[in-house]
Amino acid sequence: MSPVDTLANAVLAGDRRALARLITRIENRAPDAAAALAALFPHTGRAYIVGITGAPGTGKSTVVNALARTLRAQDHTVGIVAIDPTSPFSGGAVLGDRIRMTDLAGDRGVFIRSMANRGSLGGLAAATGDVVRVLDAAGFDIVLIETVGAGQSEVDIARTAYTTIVVDAPGLGDDVQAIKAGILEIADILVVNKADRPGADNTVRALRAMLELGHRLRSAGHHGPLLNQDDAPPEPALDLWTVPILKTVATEHAGLDELAEAIERHRAYLGESGLFEERARQRVQAELATRLREELLARLLDDRSPAAVADVIERILARRLDPGSAVRELLNGR
Amino acid sequence: MSPVDTLANAVLAGDRRALARLITRIENRAPDAAAALAALFPHTGRAYIVGITGAPGTGKSTVVNALARTLRAQDHTVGIVAIDPTSPFSGGAVLGDRIRMTDLAGDRGVFIRSMANRGSLGGLAAATGDVVRVLDAAGFDIVLIETVGAGQSEVDIARTAYTTIVVDAPGLGDDVQAIKAGILEIADILVVNKADRPGADNTVRALRAMLELGHRLRSAGHHGPLLNQDDAPPEPALDLWTVPILKTVATEHAGLDELAEAIERHRAYLGESGLFEERARQRVQAELATRLREELLARLLDDRSPAAVADVIERILARRLDPGSAVRELLNGR
Repeated sequence: MSPVDTLANAVLAGDRRALARLITRIENRAPDAAAALAALFPHTGRAYIVGITGAPGTGKSTVVNALARTLRAQDHTVGIVAIDPTSPFSGGAVLGDRIRMTDLAGDRGVFIRSMANRGSLGGLAAATGDVVRVLDAAGFDIVLIETVGAGQSEVDIARTAYTTIVVDAPGLGDDVQAIKAGILEIADILVVNKADRPGADNTVRALRAMLELGHRLRSAGHHGPLLNQDDAPPEPALDLWTVPILKTVATEHAGLDELAEAIERHRAYLGESGLFEERARQRVQAELATRLREELLARLLDDRSPAAVADVIERILARRLDPGSAVRELLNGR
Repeated sequence: MSPVDTLANAVLAGDRRALARLITRIENRAPDAAAALAALFPHTGRAYIVGITGAPGTGKSTVVNALARTLRAQDHTVGIVAIDPTSPFSGGAVLGDRIRMTDLAGDRGVFIRSMANRGSLGGLAAATGDVVRVLDAAGFDIVLIETVGAGQSEVDIARTAYTTIVVDAPGLGDDVQAIKAGILEIADILVVNKADRPGADNTVRALRAMLELGHRLRSAGHHGPLLNQDDAPPEPALDLWTVPILKTVATEHAGLDELAEAIERHRAYLGESGLFEERARQRVQAELATRLREELLARLLDDRSPAAVADVIERILARRLDPGSAVRELLNGR
């Protein structure tokens, strides 16, 4: 058996060290990672993938940990992928894993992995998708993807999930409100965490008003940002799913059963409405497009002489050739 | 003269309504925008481009506005491109423009444009680059790009700038600290805004410690995230530029002259060290790569039968074909 098959088989057999090693190889874009992923692919498609995102200060990491404990109590195994905006510059991802592990330590039904936002964005989104797939093949029932949700990058990553939870909290500042507005539209479930704080009911009311505004805009044909997006899926029939707004106090473990139940209800809704299959198809299309872009560019650059590429770059720098015309010239192989 | 030439010429002649119209056409990817950009391209390369980013709550918009007033007092014309994470869902971008305009209202030497983070990330980065180019051609001496700096997306956009300012403030929460660490490494100049608040000196000290840590890591060969990036430029000779840490109270207009002076010093440093040309070359390379990826994918999909593409997608959905093998199959035209 090749070393790659050995690694893939060890992952399938539940070997946690093999799992960690393969994820590291994916993060590092090791050449053998693709073969292991191909070997694991037929074993994927069983995990249910939940995205959890929210602005800074909402306590979403605590919600993720509390939700994982609730799901464990229901006998589900849980994989957690936390997208950590902290770069290797500060070593935050590794530190984060250790802090989080203390909460769920020693439970073999949980696997936690933080991924630092290193390298290009497309790279992170692709690596996240592959890591989720490995956890799926390894047999985890539910995979939670946690993102900070502060940028388009995190929103893109959260979109790989089947059910997306957006966490909010009372008493956040204006800047955070602006961030929130951008991610609200991807929510299948809204959570107001820290609901024991003053203003929690106001936050619930404000979210409900924003949801209703969004619904009216959509009904009136203002489809929002998706219309301008390359791989934009058609707006799903949102009318049939009313986004619930749940209150939690994750530090006290309050409201988590209701959250787990809402995830189950959304999962059933996706299945019954046919949206689950529709979204799976959209995800595959988006992933194919991303991979094709990278591979096509690599092949083109292999095919053109470095001198020709360098010449085009020099002419752009001298403002004698604009980038749009440069692209046409390189594609035509002149 | 064609309508496109008319629009480009009106922009060159300083017509602000033509400028606004062309930017809208770029945002909407109107077909004639490419021709206008090509016509304007020979007139670009004169503006100095400054990126300003910072975590939520640092007051960076106030810093941007105060800096614009300082630059105006020095007789520079200023274009501002504010990347607004608020989606059209809330109408935030348009509202933001109106609020900001009141501060610099009626000054024809300033042009402000907010861009909502709609559509794909690559789309926003490309549109931002094109809008900056239009402001450059329109004759603005300095273009300020403001981003929230909370995700890789904003970091990518800030990288289009020649000088990047990262704004911090005392007394932000832990989540914000994590975000900060991710963007610190792109700073040419650090600003501690709200410096009249308690803890400002602690913030300065903490930033200095993080900078020194980063410097040591780099010297020891740990290059951080850039090594894993597709279009990663080689690490510049950072040793020659000591990142200054400046204190401002933007609401009181304090510390802005020093900030403008630091920008000038960095500009002179880039020119004298040869880094300006090196970075310009890297930016052109990255832009070419992005455009080629999109165009290559569009051509491939034009060339393949929709039935063949649909068949590949169905086989991935049935887990009979993994995405990596699917890419190879589509590229080989089977």
